[in-house]
Amino acid sequence: MMQVIYPNLRLCLVSKSRVSEVLGRTYASENCSAARALEIVGERWSLLIIRDALFRGRTRFSEFEQSLHVAPNILTSRLERFVAEGLMEKRRYSEGAELYDYVLTDKGRELGSVIIALTAWGDRWEAPNGPPAEFKHEECDGAVGINVHCERCGSSVSLSAVGAYPGPGR
Amino acid sequence: MMQVIYPNLRLCLVSKSRVSEVLGRTYASENCSAARALEIVGERWSLLIIRDALFRGRTRFSEFEQSLHVAPNILTSRLERFVAEGLMEKRRYSEGAELYDYVLTDKGRELGSVIIALTAWGDRWEAPNGPPAEFKHEECDGAVGINVHCERCGSSVSLSAVGAYPGPGR
Repeated sequence: MMQVIYPNLRLCLVSKSRVSEVLGRTYASENCSAARALEIVGERWSLLIIRDALFRGRTRFSEFEQSLHVAPNILTSRLERFVAEGLMEKRRYSEGAELYDYVLTDKGRELGSVIIALTAWGDRWEAPNGPPAEFKHEECDGAVGINVHCERCGSSVSLSAVGAYPGPGR
Repeated sequence: MMQVIYPNLRLCLVSKSRVSEVLGRTYASENCSAARALEIVGERWSLLIIRDALFRGRTRFSEFEQSLHVAPNILTSRLERFVAEGLMEKRRYSEGAELYDYVLTDKGRELGSVIIALTAWGDRWEAPNGPPAEFKHEECDGAVGINVHCERCGSSVSLSAVGAYPGPGR
């Protein structure tokens, strides 16, 4: 690979989609979908911003900032990354100032299962006073859970009965 | 709260279990189980170390290091944190050198559902050549999936039908 002597110049020469490649990936040696997911949402605050968008209906910079008390430069960086990676769409809501709604796409929304899995783990192991929040099924008010199951035999699968094997994308 | 003028001195005065509190939490204002989970496993490499332990049978420092190409100081820090938080147990395997197996506890193993959810998302959105790895049910060789379901009505629940409400630990 070409040695990068003028990294800033090189950045100007590559297409937008290759920027993250040139900047370097945290888990560059990992060909793994979990690692790839963490490249996109593994930075501080990322998943909590998605959580706020998905389960608290937040769409605006000021709403995320007030809700999360996250530094503005970090929030800007995360939202722009989500837009670049297709997790959110940016929609201008003001004709005057350049103000935007950041709206989850299907790709962003589907991180909900990751957030529910993290929450379930935290509820079980790190919530001595009980769950701070509960997920409910809007249609019947039942508690929402997450489970690992076998798509062939249909049973719930304990983690000790799960093996990982090379797939087609190896 | 008392202002910390001599943080290093203060560290010496507190019990081990309060160290992370004094060092400061990333998501200090968040009373949320997902945030609490991310306090423990949200740092770079954390979930990939757990993945290697759970699905690749790694237990030793050298194994994690070779598999992940992670800097030794970071690996040391993560493994010690996992032991402190009860995700792993440290078992000496050599009578000579101080060498340890790091073995997942139930608390650590149950992060498997988070890893499977992350992998499923990455497989769907970030694996153009197909999944690099596949999870299989050891008993019947079926594909393992993760699903969000309602514990009352039993149906699979789409994320748009999930609401978050204050729980007892709020």
